[in-house]
Amino acid sequence: MLTYSFANLQGESIYIHLYKCIRQDILEGTLKAQEKLPSKRMLAKNLGISLITVENAYAQLAVEGYIYSEPRRGYFVSTLQQAPATKQPQPLLTPKQPAQEVPPLLSFAKSSVPPDTFPYNTWARLLRNTLTSADEHALISDTATGGVLPLRKALAKHLYQFRGLNVAPEQIIIGSGTQTLYNLIVQLLGRSHIYALEDPGYPQLAAIYRTNDVFCRYLPMDEQGIQAEVLESSGADILHITPSHQFPTGITMPVKRRYELLHWASQKSSRYIIEDDYDCEFRLFGKPIPPLQSIDKAEKVIYINTFSKTLAPTFRISYMVLPPHLASLFYAKLGFYSCTVSNFEQFTLAKFIEDGYFERHINRMRTYYRNKRDHLLQYLAACPAAKALQVEGEDSGLHFLLHLATAAGDSQLREVALKEGLQIKFLSDYYHHKLSDNSHTLLMNYTGIEDERLYPALDKLFGALLPYLKI
Amino acid sequence: MLTYSFANLQGESIYIHLYKCIRQDILEGTLKAQEKLPSKRMLAKNLGISLITVENAYAQLAVEGYIYSEPRRGYFVSTLQQAPATKQPQPLLTPKQPAQEVPPLLSFAKSSVPPDTFPYNTWARLLRNTLTSADEHALISDTATGGVLPLRKALAKHLYQFRGLNVAPEQIIIGSGTQTLYNLIVQLLGRSHIYALEDPGYPQLAAIYRTNDVFCRYLPMDEQGIQAEVLESSGADILHITPSHQFPTGITMPVKRRYELLHWASQKSSRYIIEDDYDCEFRLFGKPIPPLQSIDKAEKVIYINTFSKTLAPTFRISYMVLPPHLASLFYAKLGFYSCTVSNFEQFTLAKFIEDGYFERHINRMRTYYRNKRDHLLQYLAACPAAKALQVEGEDSGLHFLLHLATAAGDSQLREVALKEGLQIKFLSDYYHHKLSDNSHTLLMNYTGIEDERLYPALDKLFGALLPYLKI
Repeated sequence: MLTYSFANLQGESIYIHLYKCIRQDILEGTLKAQEKLPSKRMLAKNLGISLITVENAYAQLAVEGYIYSEPRRGYFVSTLQQAPATKQPQPLLTPKQPAQEVPPLLSFAKSSVPPDTFPYNTWARLLRNTLTSADEHALISDTATGGVLPLRKALAKHLYQFRGLNVAPEQIIIGSGTQTLYNLIVQLLGRSHIYALEDPGYPQLAAIYRTNDVFCRYLPMDEQGIQAEVLESSGADILHITPSHQFPTGITMPVKRRYELLHWASQKSSRYIIEDDYDCEFRLFGKPIPPLQSIDKAEKVIYINTFSKTLAPTFRISYMVLPPHLASLFYAKLGFYSCTVSNFEQFTLAKFIEDGYFERHINRMRTYYRNKRDHLLQYLAACPAAKALQVEGEDSGLHFLLHLATAAGDSQLREVALKEGLQIKFLSDYYHHKLSDNSHTLLMNYTGIEDERLYPALDKLFGALLPYLKI
Repeated sequence: MLTYSFANLQGESIYIHLYKCIRQDILEGTLKAQEKLPSKRMLAKNLGISLITVENAYAQLAVEGYIYSEPRRGYFVSTLQQAPATKQPQPLLTPKQPAQEVPPLLSFAKSSVPPDTFPYNTWARLLRNTLTSADEHALISDTATGGVLPLRKALAKHLYQFRGLNVAPEQIIIGSGTQTLYNLIVQLLGRSHIYALEDPGYPQLAAIYRTNDVFCRYLPMDEQGIQAEVLESSGADILHITPSHQFPTGITMPVKRRYELLHWASQKSSRYIIEDDYDCEFRLFGKPIPPLQSIDKAEKVIYINTFSKTLAPTFRISYMVLPPHLASLFYAKLGFYSCTVSNFEQFTLAKFIEDGYFERHINRMRTYYRNKRDHLLQYLAACPAAKALQVEGEDSGLHFLLHLATAAGDSQLREVALKEGLQIKFLSDYYHHKLSDNSHTLLMNYTGIEDERLYPALDKLFGALLPYLKI
């Protein structure tokens, strides 16, 4: 007869404890396969516990398949096949998550948003309103493909007013970051096409297409971006570009080139252009460049934008505008997907845009960035390295290029900076087909760094680089 | 000389208006390619506006490529190639978004969460705390792959306490819904494997694998789930199952079968089991079934769970637990991905779990669901159709099966219900390889429907079905 102690339950209920003891005996072979278990009544009496307790324990063991019952005969131990432990049993071996990079003192390598500029109070208030006053059904139950209608309406209006796009809310698909949208685009357009990317370009974009088993061509650019002839001879059907502000070169594609690319797209029904408008809001001079989408008459452009640069990257809200016939295809082919952004944040963002907070936030940020850039340019013009520095692309977006008059290689200078605890990236780091290992051109990502850290870091950087520069 | 009126600016700045007028003339051919524009000074004088205004307009046109400057000669109109409008120019043709289904009066076809049970106040309070007190950098800038550490730690602790899983936080990957995680799994394990799915099963799962160009086998089940021999002969490497509560049959896989499947997986290094534990929290009798992952010694199980059923589907937070060696592969291969869930909600959910709110919420919901089920079972036992109804799988999860004693076909009964404004689904709707068009078995999804609507709808349903039932 089974005998277990109930002395040390540590808060466990008696039936769970009994269930665990019997399971242990089965797993260890103390109770053999096909062995008959004592009747519930007998066991209850023997252990001095209630019948219902034994019944519950047996029921749980039976539900999980450790034991089985035969009518009028009672309970028996099941025959279990133990999986052989082919690997050494050390399941708690911690996987290596590449340690958020041993944090360098400061990085100019990645674009970021200054954390203290986020409109926390407004957001918290609007979110609270969303939680307390929105239609509960819409908030909790409606996982509509593409996003909730109020947000898509607010975006359509915003796009009309600020980007000159005339689109229906149904053409707008909300997603949790542009990475999510790129994945959807591959599923929408298919893996059998060749995709053309800008070289140099955004490395994560290439990585996403690669893990999607999509064949990519990396096309060189002239000073206006990708050329239609190069594109034509590449055999690509899908072109992914950043025409407002090419990353990382900063090229703004002129309208002539835009028409040439649209013409290329119009030549075959399978051709499309993905227009990645990732930081168009932050043209620091003049007005924003009208997107390709606004002059596309042949339904060939998929427009993508994000709130990562305007609000915060951790916010994970982006959207794309599909041409009407692709939107219909989207609903037919991918309509089973739920939107990947929480409704709480979708409704809140809709209100944030509708009530004018978003426009004001962007205007404030544009001024903030312009001032920050002006200070930085003044600093660069006056610093000891000034004569060896040439700024390019300072009028748009959140980074610019800094050409260095130097004979030293990019990797050598990168090492020099790293010794000072500074992470820097060169234009050459973004090439797929490297023309040269040395671009002598720094990417200046500085917008997210507070001045108190920025200027001491720059003093350090140029101090360290100075011996390598041609002054 | 160009002449434009500035009488009707409607709030536009003069330079923008001038820019638009000149652009219009270029696009319409009034200004010809290569034509020289008036000098800035001349134009300013002529139009009676300031020089700086003309300068700004010309600069914007030049940046966008409509005009170009030649040193000392002035500005010229660019040669533009207009894209032919291959499609009729009606860009505002609204795409058809399948109208959220013409809403039937009520649907028993889809699982849902009762919207009034969401802990709005607690959530709003915790969220406000997150926004005002969390580390700004972590909140705004850290888009760590896999999710923020506090949430992953809270989940690891929760999984240990409530599901018996002993995992490191780094093994946990947060994603915006299980759909997002399925996509990541395909990218992690690759498209060259055959994936095996349960038949009948969750149709959206098959759709996701299909749009990922993955080859799927749909395997039949016996009363314990998928059999190892069937699996072996299918040629599949990856098995995706719902062992705690098979959808839609409700089968709980017994432990013997679990060991057999683990044994199958251990036979080849490329084999893995995806364990979809989508509603394990709502076993309404006894304790939750321990997951496969907890008895896996060979690092073969990927465990997936979601907050869609426990909190809200619109919440879009799910997670998976990768075996250590797959977690390492994930960081190496997919580490470029940002987490797809907003940090605001990740930090808030971490607090919600840590402070015990989640456990209390689940317990409250389990009681709520148990009461709701008990009422429904009493209703079914007493209703006029009672003798023709047989309930199955009522002890676990958020739906059960209702066998109907009827000679009528499933589609006929579906029509009958639809005429009453009721949407119902049959077991036969979930088969890939249909054994028969008629399962005579309804899926009862009722948890999200308020009693005031539920019972009148059921009265209506069984009233309409009654003539077809064998009483």
